Amino acid sequence: MADWQEITGGVTAPRGYRAAGITAGLKPSGLPDLALIWSDAEAIAAGVFTTSQVKAACVDYCRQRLQAKHSARAILCNAGQANASTGIQGVRDAQESAELLARELSISPDSILLASTGVIGQRIKMDALRSGIPKVVAALSETGSDAAAGAIITTDLVTKSIALETTIGDASGGLRQRPVRIGGIAKGSGMIHPNMATMLAFVTCDAAVSPHLWQQMLSRAADKSFNSITVDGDTSTNDSLIALANGQSRTPAITEMGAEAEKLEAMLTAVCQHLAKAIARDGEGATCLIEVQVTGTQDEVSARQIAKTIAGSSLVKSAIFGRDPNWGRIAAAAGRAGVLFEQDNLQIKLGDFLLLENGQPLPFDRAAASAYLKKIAAESSLPQDFVATNHSNDLSVDRSIIQAQRIDNPVIITVNVGNGHGFGKAWGCDLSYDYVKINAEYTT
Amino acid sequence: MADWQEITGGVTAPRGYRAAGITAGLKPSGLPDLALIWSDAEAIAAGVFTTSQVKAACVDYCRQRLQAKHSARAILCNAGQANASTGIQGVRDAQESAELLARELSISPDSILLASTGVIGQRIKMDALRSGIPKVVAALSETGSDAAAGAIITTDLVTKSIALETTIGDASGGLRQRPVRIGGIAKGSGMIHPNMATMLAFVTCDAAVSPHLWQQMLSRAADKSFNSITVDGDTSTNDSLIALANGQSRTPAITEMGAEAEKLEAMLTAVCQHLAKAIARDGEGATCLIEVQVTGTQDEVSARQIAKTIAGSSLVKSAIFGRDPNWGRIAAAAGRAGVLFEQDNLQIKLGDFLLLENGQPLPFDRAAASAYLKKIAAESSLPQDFVATNHSNDLSVDRSIIQAQRIDNPVIITVNVGNGHGFGKAWGCDLSYDYVKINAEYTT
Repeated sequence: MADWQEITGGVTAPRGYRAAGITAGLKPSGLPDLALIWSDAEAIAAGVFTTSQVKAACVDYCRQRLQAKHSARAILCNAGQANASTGIQGVRDAQESAELLARELSISPDSILLASTGVIGQRIKMDALRSGIPKVVAALSETGSDAAAGAIITTDLVTKSIALETTIGDASGGLRQRPVRIGGIAKGSGMIHPNMATMLAFVTCDAAVSPHLWQQMLSRAADKSFNSITVDGDTSTNDSLIALANGQSRTPAITEMGAEAEKLEAMLTAVCQHLAKAIARDGEGATCLIEVQVTGTQDEVSARQIAKTIAGSSLVKSAIFGRDPNWGRIAAAAGRAGVLFEQDNLQIKLGDFLLLENGQPLPFDRAAASAYLKKIAAESSLPQDFVATNHSNDLSVDRSIIQAQRIDNPVIITVNVGNGHGFGKAWGCDLSYDYVKINAEYTT
Repeated sequence: MADWQEITGGVTAPRGYRAAGITAGLKPSGLPDLALIWSDAEAIAAGVFTTSQVKAACVDYCRQRLQAKHSARAILCNAGQANASTGIQGVRDAQESAELLARELSISPDSILLASTGVIGQRIKMDALRSGIPKVVAALSETGSDAAAGAIITTDLVTKSIALETTIGDASGGLRQRPVRIGGIAKGSGMIHPNMATMLAFVTCDAAVSPHLWQQMLSRAADKSFNSITVDGDTSTNDSLIALANGQSRTPAITEMGAEAEKLEAMLTAVCQHLAKAIARDGEGATCLIEVQVTGTQDEVSARQIAKTIAGSSLVKSAIFGRDPNWGRIAAAAGRAGVLFEQDNLQIKLGDFLLLENGQPLPFDRAAASAYLKKIAAESSLPQDFVATNHSNDLSVDRSIIQAQRIDNPVIITVNVGNGHGFGKAWGCDLSYDYVKINAEYTT
């Protein structure tokens, strides 16, 4: 059983954080488009960024900032323009954004981190941003997480948010436990919509952790979450995961691995996995979340590699959309994942249906297996009126229920490839007509 | 200019080959489904096979045969059942097929190579195969290439065939040149249709080449052709490329690299590239062929890697289907290819439209660029009556014209990433509604 509980509040659930989301006029739609996350105290900051050679200006900016200084006070995120492939002017725009915000907050620019999402090749609309900065600072609030979550999304159908709480021993070294919290918000639904690039996730924590350890924890958590989802195999120019830890829980500083560090890392991983699954479920055109569980490899990395290959296979994804228990495609995807195994050891399950064992096809009830897929898609679909209102900026909708329905009920594919102790998971979504429609019908 | 000319005759264009294709009753559709290629003399044989860990019985069979002996007389190919993931029974079926054919041909079973394509997890219908073997042997003919090409396809819309001829110095070592020929047939249209896996290609040549050199040439040609196409990123359990060289041209044996060997390898590469492009163009649901040309890398492998990543990007493919000159997706795909480059050096062209230079977006005529994409799709579409007759088994249709229209007029994406001398190409197709339809609507 998990060693933590879910709480409300998103990125403002941990102590000492405020957030805001406003409409600055960056998106043509007039929906919220400027978000700010603020820590009352300078927070240890870690980041994981796109591995693409084509990077947004904000990604280069954050990498340089975090190399020079492992802490920050604020994260500013604009939606509408990705500020990627914008050349030297994009770099200047990023710098100016940070300087303007620093002046407004009366802090040093090197305590500010930046993120952008939107159309590649477009500069940030700087006039709108300049007038938006004082407003988003004025809107900062201890209950501002949902507003921030709504202002970072682009083509997402729902906002993505989570907060968890556990306890850690207090500074006296005795048995008394004090709560620590991790919250997170994210956006993304494929590398995405007509030109809309990016997966972004912002995580806040009120534990005290040393910078090096916090970065290690975040990198490992990213491998088990954001790096284990696939919507269409495309990596964006702007992908950013930024995590702050501000120590405001007043728990003792965690400076090396041990029981407390493991507990914190497990909770950090759970927060990242929740947000990652929410992104996969919200994949363009998707009708269900797919979870692939792989066991029997030599190590975790190999297991995740197989799981990701299956979750990313267009043929597997199309079959799930067609509610077709087509295990041959799962076997084929496992086989080409680049991990050695004996095909005579291969076992494949879809939900509770055992389809292949010791490399031998088994008879199974195709109609029942197909019905299993149909049922999950039906149960995890968004309410029609929710879709019709397009979309999650209506704060009256109870998002937590919708999120849980969508994320906690995936199609489960289980694959065993041998006798090794490695295991790993990956998440994806099915491939529907709407994926092609969304991505093709942006004709000039 | 190419140092060879196109000739008719497919795999029977080179001297000393016969071929046949018949209906043995393996496909439920009643279309031709059993092909045989035969060399009058024992031929040097080379092969390139799927790298998947989940392999069809015929793939294991061929690998073992070619390890023990680098020559063969016959290639037998069945369509309808892939004989992959069929366990020990699948191995026995493959062995029995070879033994039956060997008896019918009065040769040793170890001179026979096998290929299968069709549904994964299904055994070959052995009764149909047993009664089909004498018939396909009886049907062998010096003009049988088209029949063989028609019997190896599954969901392909058109057959794929080519033959080229060049000259090589005769055995006297003087200046007199004698003709040598390479022919090829192939099938494949994605990892493919409801359960229909596989890319197969069979190449015949009448030059005399040493076994080791022939295998080297084939592996390099495969990298520049079949390993540089992508329809949906899925590698099949049955992918096989087999090439025979029987020496019947009576030209001197080529045993090491040199001018003659380079000439032969260039022609072999051209044959493979033609067949590979034909497969990509025939990708499920595709409306056009996409050729990506990459320059400026350190080496060829890096250039091909970037080209393949762009050609394989679902977002790029969707954009081309939407006739959308969305260069941001091309930039993003180039950036995530795993090849280091400076984004400030990036240049992107679509046809003649220069879209990005030195990493800076350029103004361009969007409507004209979109019209360029529309024009190519319109010009390279199959005649309606050809599609309606479903499909290429009607031998009265002049396939060569259709092939040329489809293959010689691709959408061209040109990307330069720096000052290196590496260059490479890859081919793919656009992603349409029909891809999802074909792959999803096989519901139980």
